[in-house]
Amino acid sequence: MIIVLKPDSTPAEVDHVLDRIRELGLKPHVSAGEHRTIIGVIGDETKLRAEPLQAIAGVEQVLPIMKPFKLASREMTKKDTVVLVGKVKIGGGAMGMIAGPCAIESLDVLDEIAGKVKAAGANILRGGAFKPRTSPYSFQGLGEDGLKFLQDVGKKHDMPVVTEVMDPRQIPVVEKYADMFQIGARNMQNFDLLKEIGQTKKPVLMKRAMSATVKDLLMSAEYVLSEGNPNVVLCERGVRSFEDSTRNMLDLSAVPNVKGQSHLPIIVDPSHATGRPDLIPAMALASVAAGADGIHIEVHSCPEKALSDGPQALLPPRYAELMKQIRKVAEVMGKMF
Amino acid sequence: MIIVLKPDSTPAEVDHVLDRIRELGLKPHVSAGEHRTIIGVIGDETKLRAEPLQAIAGVEQVLPIMKPFKLASREMTKKDTVVLVGKVKIGGGAMGMIAGPCAIESLDVLDEIAGKVKAAGANILRGGAFKPRTSPYSFQGLGEDGLKFLQDVGKKHDMPVVTEVMDPRQIPVVEKYADMFQIGARNMQNFDLLKEIGQTKKPVLMKRAMSATVKDLLMSAEYVLSEGNPNVVLCERGVRSFEDSTRNMLDLSAVPNVKGQSHLPIIVDPSHATGRPDLIPAMALASVAAGADGIHIEVHSCPEKALSDGPQALLPPRYAELMKQIRKVAEVMGKMF
Amino acid sequence: MIIVLKPDSTPAEVDHVLDRIRELGLKPHVSAGEHRTIIGVIGDETKLRAEPLQAIAGVEQVLPIMKPFKLASREMTKKDTVVLVGKVKIGGGAMGMIAGPCAIESLDVLDEIAGKVKAAGANILRGGAFKPRTSPYSFQGLGEDGLKFLQDVGKKHDMPVVTEVMDPRQIPVVEKYADMFQIGARNMQNFDLLKEIGQTKKPVLMKRAMSATVKDLLMSAEYVLSEGNPNVVLCERGVRSFEDSTRNMLDLSAVPNVKGQSHLPIIVDPSHATGRPDLIPAMALASVAAGADGIHIEVHSCPEKALSDGPQALLPPRYAELMKQIRKVAEVMGKMF
Amino acid sequence: MIIVLKPDSTPAEVDHVLDRIRELGLKPHVSAGEHRTIIGVIGDETKLRAEPLQAIAGVEQVLPIMKPFKLASREMTKKDTVVLVGKVKIGGGAMGMIAGPCAIESLDVLDEIAGKVKAAGANILRGGAFKPRTSPYSFQGLGEDGLKFLQDVGKKHDMPVVTEVMDPRQIPVVEKYADMFQIGARNMQNFDLLKEIGQTKKPVLMKRAMSATVKDLLMSAEYVLSEGNPNVVLCERGVRSFEDSTRNMLDLSAVPNVKGQSHLPIIVDPSHATGRPDLIPAMALASVAAGADGIHIEVHSCPEKALSDGPQALLPPRYAELMKQIRKVAEVMGKMF
Repeated sequence: MIIVLKPDSTPAEVDHVLDRIRELGLKPHVSAGEHRTIIGVIGDETKLRAEPLQAIAGVEQVLPIMKPFKLASREMTKKDTVVLVGKVKIGGGAMGMIAGPCAIESLDVLDEIAGKVKAAGANILRGGAFKPRTSPYSFQGLGEDGLKFLQDVGKKHDMPVVTEVMDPRQIPVVEKYADMFQIGARNMQNFDLLKEIGQTKKPVLMKRAMSATVKDLLMSAEYVLSEGNPNVVLCERGVRSFEDSTRNMLDLSAVPNVKGQSHLPIIVDPSHATGRPDLIPAMALASVAAGADGIHIEVHSCPEKALSDGPQALLPPRYAELMKQIRKVAEVMGKMF
Repeated sequence: MIIVLKPDSTPAEVDHVLDRIRELGLKPHVSAGEHRTIIGVIGDETKLRAEPLQAIAGVEQVLPIMKPFKLASREMTKKDTVVLVGKVKIGGGAMGMIAGPCAIESLDVLDEIAGKVKAAGANILRGGAFKPRTSPYSFQGLGEDGLKFLQDVGKKHDMPVVTEVMDPRQIPVVEKYADMFQIGARNMQNFDLLKEIGQTKKPVLMKRAMSATVKDLLMSAEYVLSEGNPNVVLCERGVRSFEDSTRNMLDLSAVPNVKGQSHLPIIVDPSHATGRPDLIPAMALASVAAGADGIHIEVHSCPEKALSDGPQALLPPRYAELMKQIRKVAEVMGKMF
Repeated sequence: MIIVLKPDSTPAEVDHVLDRIRELGLKPHVSAGEHRTIIGVIGDETKLRAEPLQAIAGVEQVLPIMKPFKLASREMTKKDTVVLVGKVKIGGGAMGMIAGPCAIESLDVLDEIAGKVKAAGANILRGGAFKPRTSPYSFQGLGEDGLKFLQDVGKKHDMPVVTEVMDPRQIPVVEKYADMFQIGARNMQNFDLLKEIGQTKKPVLMKRAMSATVKDLLMSAEYVLSEGNPNVVLCERGVRSFEDSTRNMLDLSAVPNVKGQSHLPIIVDPSHATGRPDLIPAMALASVAAGADGIHIEVHSCPEKALSDGPQALLPPRYAELMKQIRKVAEVMGKMF
Repeated sequence: MIIVLKPDSTPAEVDHVLDRIRELGLKPHVSAGEHRTIIGVIGDETKLRAEPLQAIAGVEQVLPIMKPFKLASREMTKKDTVVLVGKVKIGGGAMGMIAGPCAIESLDVLDEIAGKVKAAGANILRGGAFKPRTSPYSFQGLGEDGLKFLQDVGKKHDMPVVTEVMDPRQIPVVEKYADMFQIGARNMQNFDLLKEIGQTKKPVLMKRAMSATVKDLLMSAEYVLSEGNPNVVLCERGVRSFEDSTRNMLDLSAVPNVKGQSHLPIIVDPSHATGRPDLIPAMALASVAAGADGIHIEVHSCPEKALSDGPQALLPPRYAELMKQIRKVAEVMGKMF
């Protein structure tokens, strides 16, 4: 931690800051410069982080040096974490190829889509039973019935399944039917939900919130890890921006950015990031080349009749064609699925 | 609803779109232009909104004409809504002046701060008992003990109290002690929480999410209203932007923007918006001049020892001085508190 | 300047950094912490700023301590600068009330508008002769003819005039007819233009670029100041954001933010910031309450026939009504015009 | 063009709008709906676009249907444009691999870097002689001397050269020495510069401004095309966002987005987009997979002594290694260089 004092700070103010640091059992190092005095603090930065030093008179800036997350950090765990979803590996060269409809609508539609994405190479099935919708008048999901359909279809096609959990009270029922929890973008900072999912052992797919920095995303992973669940897979799905021709802006640099700072796997969801089927294939290929540990794509056999987010779904034949190209790029990158 | 077809759309594609519209019991009006064919749809737009028409081959753009919210709209209710928090009115010329510490730390500290903000003119006391913190290692709030302190102190100083609720399971306990629920920015799209708060009758202070548009904010209010609770007060508290010298960017134009579209009151929180005590007073005054129905300010008697967000709190004397200026601007604007 | 080394930096890397610092005639102070080594540098930070220290192996972060601008800084000049435009003062309690059409269209229309805004209290007339238009097919301005109209109308109504200069070659002709140069948002980082305007003595209205931070804006002012022209008035006019219901997002906190860091006056342009006449009055009042040194508003007597940005112009009667309210808020703030 | 009237618009207002449309020689089609009246306009939309219809009383929304650019549009030219820079093709399967230092510092350093990037597979040499720097105190470039070095070194290594032009007055001298103009991000809307470059025949590398939408970028290309120069290559180089761990946010979806709307080639600059050498290789590979027609990378043999942007430059060996990987991904994508 480095504390920069204002140019006109008084000796009494400097002493006050030094006292606060020593009270915490830490050692301050003072450098009196020409224009400003700077205090470096040696010791456990986490003790200081909680302190509102910035509020002390005479303090201009407080600059943390250490990263605010630990368990998620590459410094803590050098080796890439591999998360196991059913029998499917994500990370360490293995890719999680997640596909399926936005919402689970019926057993038949789900079964049809599952058969097609499986044949194309997908290894994890997705489908929403509890849907976060911006309008209270939109389809809100089938709930537990949907979960049953998802489990049955997953078993039939031998694919583990992932589905969103929006509320801590849904954890037991989702845990019963699904192989992986999804935390949606709107719940990335629903801290009660994060803590209680951290108390389960099931893997978690954690989507980046629309206004979260990469550091915020890793802090939310830290919540889950700190409760004892190490099986977190991150997911870049676009952030809010001024560009109005795409639904969100895909921040693909988050992939190498996360990999430099953390050992956790990270996948990409080009469907929500772009909201446009004409852009999804290019962005899926780019994600693989950027080093992603998997791709999450919405597929629907009749997008125009889908009950949620139809316009951004790929048709099964387009998905199958894309998967062939993805395989080629994955091979170049030394990845497999 | 207007549907714009691609320049190269085929007659069969046009017919397919027309069939889908008629299936919903709506009437299409076709205008064949030089470059493109356009279909206008007469009838209940909400039926169409749920339809993924954009996914149909040959469709280039789908342009909704009606606003997606109803109960929150000014078209539905022309007159400004006045929300009653205890005996305090917010809206219709009456301002809710909310002040208090970020987190409730102890009975004594809260009591001291409450006495001072009350003396300065605040009419609603705030304080957090359940705290959403980006780090799992930060102070998480006192929980029910904090709520009891808040109720006691509010009664002693004759101020209704507002506090954040983060999880639907906390609703009963918060309802027991508080006069107003606060929905934090991170929970503005926690739809289960919104629905269940909509089933209570207590007023709700709904903060804008960091990446929410004004329309998103009104849609979240619609969730609460549609469940039967009409007592929603909106709160602008800054959004994420590239400007790195303030914590968020205060979007003050949201105040007249909301007032044009909705009858709901809207207040401003310059503390979270700027994160900087040196900017809070100017932004509080600007908010009143922009037409806000109240101001929400964090005040702490010892910011450097606060357990949460200390650096952004005003000291009580600075708050008292600001309130004098606010009164003068409020008077010019024809508002009172 | 503080240089933070990577946790695994080698002694040779540390020595290499120390050598580079000493080569520049500066003194390094080393603090070896538990997790990281930190080097503080005492001396002229500007020497170091130009050095790509970040590129040296073993360096994790380089944290500048001093602000990158000097002449524009409050540290250099404590007292508020007052800029004189003709006989009108901007700054130090005096407000520049700039009004007029977006583009100069004809002598008659300009004259009519000028008479009305003058009567309402405006003290500086604006109008564009060289127009930056996103489309090559839009009206590009009347050029020198427009400048003549502007000068004549300004003289007739005894108002100094401001107009945009887009290209260094236009400086002499604009200087001949206008009392103040306007640098548009799209040219805020047209550094050749800034330098050459810095070599004149005429006052400059510098608009913030759509993606400029407050620091970027002050750096652009520094360009003008460093060439010898001290008469810079800054202008907040909104930045790009994800909010799609307004043209830009007005960052009103830039007003107190600039005033804390710089002695230069700053005015606000709510017309370009919002692009919506229904929001301009509230934002103009808010700007005055936030401490702005002036307001810039587009006014047109027939917005529906304006050749540029008509829809965002106020009608003269609405402007006159607004000016009455502005006067009341200005009085409360101790400002005059 | 579609004009949506307010729910309470009067018959007189509707007639007024219809009159204005007919005055322009266009045909209005009126659809009177349950909630709103909508007017569709058939005919040349460009006539209407210039009209401030939004300013007419009773008008709620004006929705353009046609794209505002023509010459740059895919509708105008179906086939991909191939731009020739010297003998190097960009577009239509051929990739422009641009590399070199940020600024030209000396003949020797440039020559050394050029030899190395050429050996690694680069086919166009870059280097800045006129530098747009945010600080007036930073290195501003060598000017014409730099251009001479660039031409000489380009000839020696048989590589065409590209360099930035910041001011219309620099066009003749840059045209004399360089094979391609670069328009920097800060000048993308310097319309005088665009028009005059449009009057030359030399190819242009047009970088996206930090706050430009994809549509804005194509409108700026339209400026150059409309003056007669068809040789425009677009360049995505990152936009401003709230993410503070990268210099900008690379919007890679701009690549397929542009390709869908326009026939112009588009390349990517991961150096400026990320500002971090650790992220550049992944983003370069991703760009190729996304369909980019070239990659622009800053390379310096001694980044820590570079006079501009050293920390974001790759070392020549890292560049050579990356180019091998790029070749493999390019091969999968059916591209060559």
